[in-house]
Amino acid sequence: MEKVAIVGQGMVKFGKHTEKSFVDLAAKASLRALENSRMSEKNIDALYLSSLFAGELNHQVGTASALVDTLGLLPCAANRIENGNAAGGRAIREAYMAIASGVHDIVMVTGCDKMRQVSNATVTDYVATMAHPEAEYVHGVTLPSLAGMLARLYMHKYGMERKHLSMVSVKNQKNGCKNPFAHVQQEITMEGICFEPESEINNPLVADPLRLYDCCPVSDGSASIILCNAERAKEFTDTPVFLSGIGQATDTLAVHERVDPTILNSVREASKQAFAMAKLTPKDISFAELHDAFSILEIVESEDAGFFEKGTGFKALEQGITQKDGAFPINPSGGLKARGHPVGVTGVAQACEITKQLQGEAGEMQIKNAQSAYCCNFGGFGNNVTALIMKRKN
Amino acid sequence: MEKVAIVGQGMVKFGKHTEKSFVDLAAKASLRALENSRMSEKNIDALYLSSLFAGELNHQVGTASALVDTLGLLPCAANRIENGNAAGGRAIREAYMAIASGVHDIVMVTGCDKMRQVSNATVTDYVATMAHPEAEYVHGVTLPSLAGMLARLYMHKYGMERKHLSMVSVKNQKNGCKNPFAHVQQEITMEGICFEPESEINNPLVADPLRLYDCCPVSDGSASIILCNAERAKEFTDTPVFLSGIGQATDTLAVHERVDPTILNSVREASKQAFAMAKLTPKDISFAELHDAFSILEIVESEDAGFFEKGTGFKALEQGITQKDGAFPINPSGGLKARGHPVGVTGVAQACEITKQLQGEAGEMQIKNAQSAYCCNFGGFGNNVTALIMKRKN
Repeated sequence: MEKVAIVGQGMVKFGKHTEKSFVDLAAKASLRALENSRMSEKNIDALYLSSLFAGELNHQVGTASALVDTLGLLPCAANRIENGNAAGGRAIREAYMAIASGVHDIVMVTGCDKMRQVSNATVTDYVATMAHPEAEYVHGVTLPSLAGMLARLYMHKYGMERKHLSMVSVKNQKNGCKNPFAHVQQEITMEGICFEPESEINNPLVADPLRLYDCCPVSDGSASIILCNAERAKEFTDTPVFLSGIGQATDTLAVHERVDPTILNSVREASKQAFAMAKLTPKDISFAELHDAFSILEIVESEDAGFFEKGTGFKALEQGITQKDGAFPINPSGGLKARGHPVGVTGVAQACEITKQLQGEAGEMQIKNAQSAYCCNFGGFGNNVTALIMKRKN
Repeated sequence: MEKVAIVGQGMVKFGKHTEKSFVDLAAKASLRALENSRMSEKNIDALYLSSLFAGELNHQVGTASALVDTLGLLPCAANRIENGNAAGGRAIREAYMAIASGVHDIVMVTGCDKMRQVSNATVTDYVATMAHPEAEYVHGVTLPSLAGMLARLYMHKYGMERKHLSMVSVKNQKNGCKNPFAHVQQEITMEGICFEPESEINNPLVADPLRLYDCCPVSDGSASIILCNAERAKEFTDTPVFLSGIGQATDTLAVHERVDPTILNSVREASKQAFAMAKLTPKDISFAELHDAFSILEIVESEDAGFFEKGTGFKALEQGITQKDGAFPINPSGGLKARGHPVGVTGVAQACEITKQLQGEAGEMQIKNAQSAYCCNFGGFGNNVTALIMKRKN
């Protein structure tokens, strides 16, 4: 198979973008990715747009083709990927295969979602349509409630305390303060969000034991990367980043059908595939971007991806190992918690953040001597996961 | 690049399927495709689901992963493609690249859309969200109205008469009577739909000059094919069909931006790519399945795909060339006009119909000595087109 490199990346600051149409918001990050590489729009021969709710929340379908037209890429092939929250990672995997098959040379992957122009109740409802329609959704199960049940079960099984969840939020919001593209740039403290009486006021309950600061914000945003055959990478950038491992796996849609819901089988399987392809082990990885839509997910994913033994992720967190200056930083970008989570964009945004780190261009977020990174993009409630491994050197 | 073969196909009869959930309807065609090949679900290592309106009309997203779970394919990679009406053809192209890249061996492509549980006005509105949001949609432009304007312009420019449009409908509904999976199995006559006074009663105006019988019905349906590396094809069927050419192109979203709207540039470009890859010319093709969502489209596509000179497609039709027993049959399956058009399914259904023909399994629809076929899957109003060429022999 051909080797594939990332040669450009661009993002908009996540937050509220009511001033822009869906396609214009997608175009903004795409143009920044073009600027970030030494190429013109004429070089692109296929575009993948990852979006979860283009049609549902923005009343427009066929948006990939619309974006190709707006960017002046005609007659380039266009394709929209919808795969729950893992749409972004999945679009990158499609781009990888398009290049590895020899069909396309240079492929743009752009993620875009706009979710702020509707009420939070509408967003929560649409996000819940990823749950099982007959076994979960109709009974009022939402994604926050599934995350709450996972957290409770994990606490019961492994002895984690409620404070550990807040440690994720405090760490990631601290990291996010250094990220110019983060939706939330506000440092919080354990005293402010975790301990009574402040927590009752500042951090209201969402889905027991999860509170407001355990949940990522609802964001508009877009992010874009450009991939090409690794042999051509130096034409377009001095610092290509190599996509050396990629995996994808599916688990049962209904969470109650899993033998042990504290084990994310799809994270395990996708990671196993990615590590095998990259010929690396978790010990070889410098840092990770994980899918912390809810604080508990960062802890569980850090175990099932293979970085910590099962039931010990919260201990590593408590020991400071996953801090930005720790032995194994997790979410130096601030993660979904601080950067925000325009749902179909997240997988692409993670790849942008890692690209900057491996290029040494991450500014105040920079991890020293970062050589390789892992990220996990988590769709549905873990029924659909993509794992990526990226390296500085081919 | 690896060569890719189709080794199984399955469809449900298009029509109204309110008794089944979205995923159950998708599963039905998928299971038939498995039965049609000599393989079990254990063989499948990736699934693409093409659907235009899973979320909008059925309030469920992440449906590809849900289908993988329902079919018992875990942990197989799952991906939903939304690309306007061309979602089906595009999903086949993704499957092709997944196999050609060496990442996957055996890939299922299933199309599913359910559109009959909402009003026709709702469907027409959602379908119109493929039009340009600011230049077309907000002004009330719908896809039937764009097709009506194309028909009027084409009539003006090339001297076609209104009766030629009806000839497409009469031909395709006649063909559809032989198709057990067609939504509409009703023969119509020129006298009944084309000439006054009957036409005023039987065939009311939709978007001048287009009338009811110029438009495909609104259908629920699903269709599925299984693809694999051509080298392994004989393990799974005695009569594999080879995917020898595939192309994809994008045109301007707003139709008024095209220099000559009677020319479908994306059909031309996608077809050019497909013929080049297959090392064939239009003269080498035995028959075609075209995207006759509106009667005018069959005529215009038959020219831009390269089968007839520009402005002569309607003459070929009048001469009977495109009849089932003509020199170059078009839509022997009945096309979208008779088979129906569950929007994201059509590209997959076309591939099913062609597979049956090239296997000699098309029953009363069978074209004698069919060796190769072309199909065109048309998204938006021609801003996004996939062209496929399939062959009996590799």
